[in-house]
Parts: sequence; structure tokens; C-alpha cells
Amino acid sequence: MTAAGIPAAEIGRLVVRCPDRPGIVSTVSSFLTAAGANILSLDQHATEQRGGTFFQRTEFHLPGLHEQLPSLRAAFDAEVATPLGMEATLTAAATPKRLGIMVSKLDHCLLDLLWRTQRGELDVTVEVVVSNHPDLAPAVEQFGVPFVHVPVTPETKPEAEARQAELLRGLDLVVLARYMQIVSGELLAAVGAPMINIHHSFLPAFVGAVPYRRAKERGVKIVGATAHYVTEDLDEGPIIEQDVVRVDHRHSAADLTRLGADVERSVLSRAVRWHCEDRVLRDGATTIVF
Amino acid sequence: MTAAGIPAAEIGRLVVRCPDRPGIVSTVSSFLTAAGANILSLDQHATEQRGGTFFQRTEFHLPGLHEQLPSLRAAFDAEVATPLGMEATLTAAATPKRLGIMVSKLDHCLLDLLWRTQRGELDVTVEVVVSNHPDLAPAVEQFGVPFVHVPVTPETKPEAEARQAELLRGLDLVVLARYMQIVSGELLAAVGAPMINIHHSFLPAFVGAVPYRRAKERGVKIVGATAHYVTEDLDEGPIIEQDVVRVDHRHSAADLTRLGADVERSVLSRAVRWHCEDRVLRDGATTIVF
Amino acid sequence: MTAAGIPAAEIGRLVVRCPDRPGIVSTVSSFLTAAGANILSLDQHATEQRGGTFFQRTEFHLPGLHEQLPSLRAAFDAEVATPLGMEATLTAAATPKRLGIMVSKLDHCLLDLLWRTQRGELDVTVEVVVSNHPDLAPAVEQFGVPFVHVPVTPETKPEAEARQAELLRGLDLVVLARYMQIVSGELLAAVGAPMINIHHSFLPAFVGAVPYRRAKERGVKIVGATAHYVTEDLDEGPIIEQDVVRVDHRHSAADLTRLGADVERSVLSRAVRWHCEDRVLRDGATTIVF
Amino acid sequence: MTAAGIPAAEIGRLVVRCPDRPGIVSTVSSFLTAAGANILSLDQHATEQRGGTFFQRTEFHLPGLHEQLPSLRAAFDAEVATPLGMEATLTAAATPKRLGIMVSKLDHCLLDLLWRTQRGELDVTVEVVVSNHPDLAPAVEQFGVPFVHVPVTPETKPEAEARQAELLRGLDLVVLARYMQIVSGELLAAVGAPMINIHHSFLPAFVGAVPYRRAKERGVKIVGATAHYVTEDLDEGPIIEQDVVRVDHRHSAADLTRLGADVERSVLSRAVRWHCEDRVLRDGATTIVF
Repeated sequence: MTAAGIPAAEIGRLVVRCPDRPGIVSTVSSFLTAAGANILSLDQHATEQRGGTFFQRTEFHLPGLHEQLPSLRAAFDAEVATPLGMEATLTAAATPKRLGIMVSKLDHCLLDLLWRTQRGELDVTVEVVVSNHPDLAPAVEQFGVPFVHVPVTPETKPEAEARQAELLRGLDLVVLARYMQIVSGELLAAVGAPMINIHHSFLPAFVGAVPYRRAKERGVKIVGATAHYVTEDLDEGPIIEQDVVRVDHRHSAADLTRLGADVERSVLSRAVRWHCEDRVLRDGATTIVF
Repeated sequence: MTAAGIPAAEIGRLVVRCPDRPGIVSTVSSFLTAAGANILSLDQHATEQRGGTFFQRTEFHLPGLHEQLPSLRAAFDAEVATPLGMEATLTAAATPKRLGIMVSKLDHCLLDLLWRTQRGELDVTVEVVVSNHPDLAPAVEQFGVPFVHVPVTPETKPEAEARQAELLRGLDLVVLARYMQIVSGELLAAVGAPMINIHHSFLPAFVGAVPYRRAKERGVKIVGATAHYVTEDLDEGPIIEQDVVRVDHRHSAADLTRLGADVERSVLSRAVRWHCEDRVLRDGATTIVF
Repeated sequence: MTAAGIPAAEIGRLVVRCPDRPGIVSTVSSFLTAAGANILSLDQHATEQRGGTFFQRTEFHLPGLHEQLPSLRAAFDAEVATPLGMEATLTAAATPKRLGIMVSKLDHCLLDLLWRTQRGELDVTVEVVVSNHPDLAPAVEQFGVPFVHVPVTPETKPEAEARQAELLRGLDLVVLARYMQIVSGELLAAVGAPMINIHHSFLPAFVGAVPYRRAKERGVKIVGATAHYVTEDLDEGPIIEQDVVRVDHRHSAADLTRLGADVERSVLSRAVRWHCEDRVLRDGATTIVF
Repeated sequence: MTAAGIPAAEIGRLVVRCPDRPGIVSTVSSFLTAAGANILSLDQHATEQRGGTFFQRTEFHLPGLHEQLPSLRAAFDAEVATPLGMEATLTAAATPKRLGIMVSKLDHCLLDLLWRTQRGELDVTVEVVVSNHPDLAPAVEQFGVPFVHVPVTPETKPEAEARQAELLRGLDLVVLARYMQIVSGELLAAVGAPMINIHHSFLPAFVGAVPYRRAKERGVKIVGATAHYVTEDLDEGPIIEQDVVRVDHRHSAADLTRLGADVERSVLSRAVRWHCEDRVLRDGATTIVF
């Protein structure tokens, strides 16, 4: 899905959102064409046919993008976004998103993100890994990524969250890669970036703790995992991606945990990839994934 | 999975359940061998390694099975089942299960069951279709199956259930193929046969009404269906089979309904097939599917 | 994916194909906007970033579409298609495609298409079913669809194909729903409409005859089905859709046939649906499915 | 699927294969029961109902297994295996299989095997990694596993294979984790252990080189991977496991390679796990996976 043969530095992404009305596709694409850009891909969606919200993601090729980006943003705001009441984000594909990762003791999601980053499959830089346990420090440091141990106890939670916010503030995305503590609304606000969490069930089934044990007790024939944006309501944030795996009566709860781990790491990596390619747009309690 | 080259009339199935203890496989298989039977397939499961429950399904070839069945049952009870505190069922594969189907207005699950029966894929006889609406009478009658319209209103529910029980009593299995009324504990008891229901979500997600609409609102990326035994607790019965299909933001609730219908008919048909082949054993709130 | 709340009569589809160059999205969308149309959905694809072929499908809302269609077509040809060297098709969503179906003795794919048409899931009219065997006449006639038996033997193949061409000429699409005869290039040309075939393997595996038996012999763990456009090269036409199902050593070749039949009917129905919604564009030996 | 609460040292596995005849299940299970063993799980399969080959895998609990293993083997051979013309393998679950891995430059399959071994998910010891390139030495050494670089050129192939055989002889299993050289029949014989290869297509589709590029050219909608035993006929060995992932026209050949890599590592890890649990039995050109 990358633009073969075009230097990444010349590829831009324009993501917009506004009340639906006729002519938006035409207006946005005409603006880009007039600016000398060639549209590489365009996805759009309207939540309802009349009176809904309109979303569009456009990837385009524009030689000299890097130099023109500020003026292009200003022109788009003045000529298109402001008149149409549009929220717009214009980014350069060549600028990798800067990530922070929070983790506890389980390594499978964390390692998958670090591997994919190392081999260039995820176009991001991992700035820091923050954990409430020291166990994964050696694994992280092998990738040349800073690891910071911030212990969390009920008594020290406010100070711990202050330290976490300090470490994570200013990043583009924070990923909870099996971080087993509840993130408070305060931390979410203090970090100021979107957070993506992986939940180890196909939500809304098995909201809350020990989902694999409860899945075993309920006798389901399929278990899964869900990547979602973090909101103040635990396990209720907008879902980005889900996947599942078949199980049967011969699988113990430990087997479900093992099989589920593979689904978790795939689902989380896909969600992070799509987010970092500016493909995921929030629409209330749900998402649009272009 | 059928026994190629062996007359169906000579194939028997022995399903047992008892407290786990050493030697059961050996005892049961030695009994069958001594009786002149050849074991075609054997599946067993113990819920825990020590102190649990043991389940086994054995399919065997025995010339003259039909004539020997009563004496074989008596001998097995006396020599094996009673000494080991075992529940045992010994059936002839050649005797098709006798089914009743309950349905409301949606035809996709019903038609799939009737069509698979007609082409010999489901080895059952459908004795009657009972519906609270008259709409599907012509479709059912084309298959040569009796259709009985039993209207149900809040006022007439007791009489209606009495009539339903009368129609369905004595059958081997009742299938709720998108029957949109709650089945009371009284009806369940009066029918006296297992009932299988298809629920249009991957339980325990979206228990209750309008699951596809709620799936759309929650923004899930996967929808599914669940076939389960009916118990007095709505949507809480032991799950036999589940399956799912991927969806995205472009799908309306109506699209989910359409895509889900394909999953529902597949899942229900598989569950009915497995039940009728004596492959499904209840284990508390869950099932074992051999 | 339908336009909720908008009369189908006011929905149009514009599908275009041309050498890629900057400005096409803008030109096409500006034309539609100027004509008073509101774009409901837009998908585009370029085969390579430079010097490739560009494809676009646009669904739009235009009150009075039916009356304006001829003038809209003429205007688009003059102002856009001809200047840009574009092939363009402009259709009304309210006009169902007219289908012919060819079949031999297996009913599962045929019945699935007829059921879906009957319940409004496939927006088509089935004009005729042509078979080289008489067996499926009663099943077809229950749907009120004409059934024509055209026997085919090696000696009578030319006359048979002449009769088939006569029955199928002038339709929008011909579906081979497990038609077990090879269609000659002459028949393909004489019919003059696209043909979609279902092959009972995941092509290019098991090209040719008896794929399930060969799948059993090769010991594959997955079997599948492929819907593709018919070309003169057997089993080599552009693939529209594929799907698979897991199998294991316990499944006989007959089991593969049974399990595969469910995949075949789903895959073929999806391919036909997408084709009839003008979502499938040929790109050499492959397809683009919007 | 592990035996909760039972020391691994007391768990044995008996895998047998012989001409099918009545009474085998009974004979084998009676032998085990008489020896004081409790059967934990039993899977059996007969290739045809009459005159075929019979396969059985039994997992059992026997206190003192370690000490009794030699005498148990001798007794089973004398009392059961020899009289019935049976090939039998009796192993202790607590004895991990000793693995060698061959690899070239791609790390995803190798890393997945090493990581699963490290976290105890694969119950094996990796004795050595042999590569025809030096690139992956640091990655392997982080896991504390010896890495040996054995360059291979057309001229040096015989010497290289001699060196490889020396390194790999005496192991229980050799895994080709994207090893991009053809293994000769001589090497296979000299190593003397089973070899499992991962092929990056769903065989028999795209036998041979560059399968993802050919998949892109053919326009398939699904790509996959296949783990199989290595035989002298390239890509023709018995298939152990396969899996697939959906793709569409927007995916480049590079995207297929990336998406396929995830399937490859899962499929290979499952095949290796099952082999090492003595679950995979060869049956001519196919496998039985219990």
C-alpha cells in the first residue's frame, strides 16, 4: 500500500472530517490538483446519507512537499477547511510517529511491536518503554530503546502517573501492550496523545478481568482480542481492530491464554500500524478504518 | 467421517459419561471387542486429570447390530455401566433422529436445514415445522413437511405452548430456527427433548434483543452467531458451535443482518448435524463436541 | 452499503478506467458536483504510481437521474471521457442486472442464487436457467424461473451451443453455477456478456477435474473455491473472490465435497453480487473489487 | 492440552501404526492399564474401514515412568507390537526434542521459534542454528543459542552439506526456517532426522520460487503458507499445517510478503509444536495430526 517508486518525502496525507454536504470530494480533490499534487489514494465515508458526518483520507504525491507543507496547510485552512467547518490534518508520510509503550510483565505484544519496528514494517520510532515491573528491561534494551521502571502501588499511583505523564508527554501515540493497570482520566489528559490498548477478548464479550478463564467457564468455541482507543470508561473505547481463533473443550484456560496471545499481538500491531498511517478516524464510540 | 463400505445398519455408537478413574477406555473397548465389534473411531475427554468427569464416544462396526442392540445394551449396563457408575447411550447410526423445527418469519435457517435434509447431508427426518406466523407454510410444504401455524399472543401463550408441546412431544430434537418467542421452562419440560437455538451474536456478546443493531452501535469489527442448547436462562445455555464474519464501518445494521444470516445458517446446521451424530455431550454449562 | 433513505431510482454509478495522470479524481468529481449529484461513495485505484492504469467507481445521488441519464452520459463522454481517453460506464442502481444461469446436476450454487434473489438480497432478475440435464427443473420452477433443458453430447455440442447462445444472448451476466461442460470461445463470443464460473478449489491449486479428490490425495489442510470470469483458457480467468475451509485427515473426499459446497455457494453469491453492483473491474488477468 | 497437576516426568506417549484389524484399541489400552498407566488422551484413525492402516496416539500417566521406560518398551514390543506387526514409539513427555534450525537471511520464522522456546511454549532445546549467511548471528546469540555460518556456493555445496550434516546429525528434528537453498537427498539421509520446511504459499499453489510475486500476478484473493516434511521432491513432502490470509488489489507483492510472513511464522511454529508433541504421523504423501 505504499507508493512504489515515489520518494516517501514527497507523499502527503490529508485527513478531513466535517458535516456532510454535496461537493466535498470535488472541493478537496480540486484543491490538491491545483496545488500540483497527484492523488494516490482516496477513501471517504459518510455516516448517513443525509445530515451525517463526512470523513475522507487522501494520500497524494507532491514534489517539494516538505518545503510546502506549512503554506499548504495555511491555504487549505483558509480556502477549504474554514469555509466548510472542517477538521483537517495534513501530514508528511516521511515523518514517523513517535511512540511510547506501557507494559507490565507479558512480553508478546511488546516484542512484536519492537520487532516490526526494527525490520521497518512499522514506520515509527519507539521513544520509551515504561513498565510497572523491571522484568522486561533486558529485552527492551536489546532493541536500543530506553526502558523506564515506574513502580505503581495503590499508595503511589498519583506520583507514578505524574512520572508516567512526564515520560510520555509530547509523543504522538501511547500503546498499552498488556499494561495491567487502569489508566486514569488524569493520566490520559496529561499525556495528551491517543492511547491504544489491547484487551484479551472479543469485546463486548468478557469485559474486565481474567477473560480467558471466563471464556473457558462459559464454554465459548472462539476466543479473540480487541485493540481500542483508551477512554475513561474501561473497555468501552472505540474499537480499531479485532480477531479471533477457534478453540474447543480440550483447551484449558492456559491454552486459551497461549492461543490468544498470538491473536493479541497481531491485532495490536495492525491497529498501531493503521493508526500511524493516519487510517483510523474516530466517529463517536466507533472508528472508521480506511 | 462416515464409514465407507460398511452398511450403515451395522454401525453403532456408544456414548458414555462417568466419574474419571483408570481403566475406562480399556474396559469399554474390551467389552466391544469381546462382543465382536470393531472400533471405527474413539474420542474421549476427561475434564480434569484427577477427580473429574470422563466422557467417551465410540463408533463401531458390528454385523447384526440391529438384532443384537437390546441384548448388547443389557449386557453393557450389567457388565460395565452399572459397576462404573456410568451413564451410557447406545444407538444405531442407521436410525435417523426425528426433528421438530420452530420458526417465526425468517426463512434462512429453516430452509438450510430442510435443504440439507433433502439432499441427505443431514441424516434426520423433519416431522413437523411449528410457527407463530403463517408466512413460511408454502416454503415448508414444498419439502413435503407438515407445517402447523400456532399463533402466540401474551394472552394465549399458555394454550399455545400446550399445543406446541403436543406437536413436539416424543421427538428426538427440537430446533429453534430463528423462533422469536421466549420458550418457557414449562414448554421445555413438556417437550422432553433437547432444544437447540441459534442466537444471532457470538455469545456472550450482545445477549438479548437486536444484537446486530447493538453490534453496529458498538462498532465491532466482527459479528457472529451461536448455536446452543436451550435452558431456562435465556442465551445462557451450553454453546455447541459459533462462527464469525468480519465487518467494517461501511456496513449498515442491515448489512450486518444479511452477512450474519449466512453465519447463522451454517452454525445452526453444523450444530444440528453434530447433535444428531451423537457428537455433542453436555458438561455443566458447556459442551464437549467430539 | 446501500443508501439509506435515498430512493434507489435516484442513485447512479459511474465506473471509469483510463491511463493514470494527475487530476482525474478532481475532474470526475467536479463534473458530478456540477451536474447536481452528491457523491455517496468513491473508490479508486491506480495499478502503479506512474504510467499505470487508473480505475474509479463512484456512487452518487441525483434527483431525476432516470430522466437525465442519457444527457448525463453524453455530457460525460464529451467533457471528460473522450478528452482523457477514458472508458466509462454510467448505470442506474435501480435497474437490476438480467441474469442467465447454466447448471448441470448439483443444486447448491443454483439454489443459493435463487434464494438470495427471492429474498431481495441479490438485486437481479434471473431470466432463464439452462441445463444439460433435466434434473433441476422442478426446483427452478418453484421460483417461477424458466428452465430450459439443452442436452449436450460431443456430437451435438455445436447445435447445443447455438441453442444456449440463443437463450442467453442479450443478458447482462451469465453465471456457471457448477456447469460441468467446457464453454467454448465461440459460445462466449456469441453470448456477448461476461460469464462468471465457480471452480471448486482455491486456484491455482487443483486446476482441472476432480479437485476435492486430488486435495484429499495431496493431504492439504485447507480446501476452497474460486469465482472467476470465464475466458478461453480454462480456470485461468480473472479471479473475483475466493474462500477456504479447514479440513483434516478424518475427512474423506466426500466430506471435502460437502464442506466445499458451502464455500462454493458463498463465494459465487458474493462474486455475483459484487459484479451486479458494478464493483468488479477487470485489470488484465486480475480484478479490482471495490 | 497438558496434564494439569500431573508431573511431566510421569507422562508418556505411545504412538503406534499397523495394519488395521479388530481389537487394537482394546489390546493397547488393556496393556497400558495392566501396566498401571491411566490414559489421559487417546486419538486413533484408520485410513479405510477395511484393509487400511491403523494409527493411534495415547498419552498416559504412569508414576515411575522414567525408571520403567526400558522395561515397558520391551514388554510392549514382545506382547503387542511384534504380534500385531506394529511400529511403535514410546516416549517420555518430559524429554524435550533436540532441534537444529537452518535459515538464510529472513528472521521472522527463526525468531518466532526461538522466542516460543524461551518462554516455554515450545518444549524443545535448540542445539544449533546453521545459516548460509552470517547476518542473523547476533539475533541468535542473544538467545544463547550457537550460530554457525556455513557458506554455500554451487562449487562448495558438497563440502557445505558435509559440514551441515556434521552439525545436525543426531538431533531429533531439523527445521528449515526460510532456508533458501535446496536440500539434497544426500544431506537429508546424512542428517537422519525428520526435516520440516515452511513454504510461502498454500501448496500446491505456487510451487517453486517467488510465490508472492506470482500470487500478485495471478490476482488471487488469498495467500498462505505451508509447513511440510522435506522429501527429495521439492515442495511435495507431506503437509503438516497450512493457513491463509485475505488480500486484495491494493496489496503490492511487497505487502503480500509482509502479510504472508505472519502466516509463515504461525504455521511453522504450530507444525513444530505438534511434531514435538508426537502428534504428527506420516501416512504416505500425507499426514495425520492428532
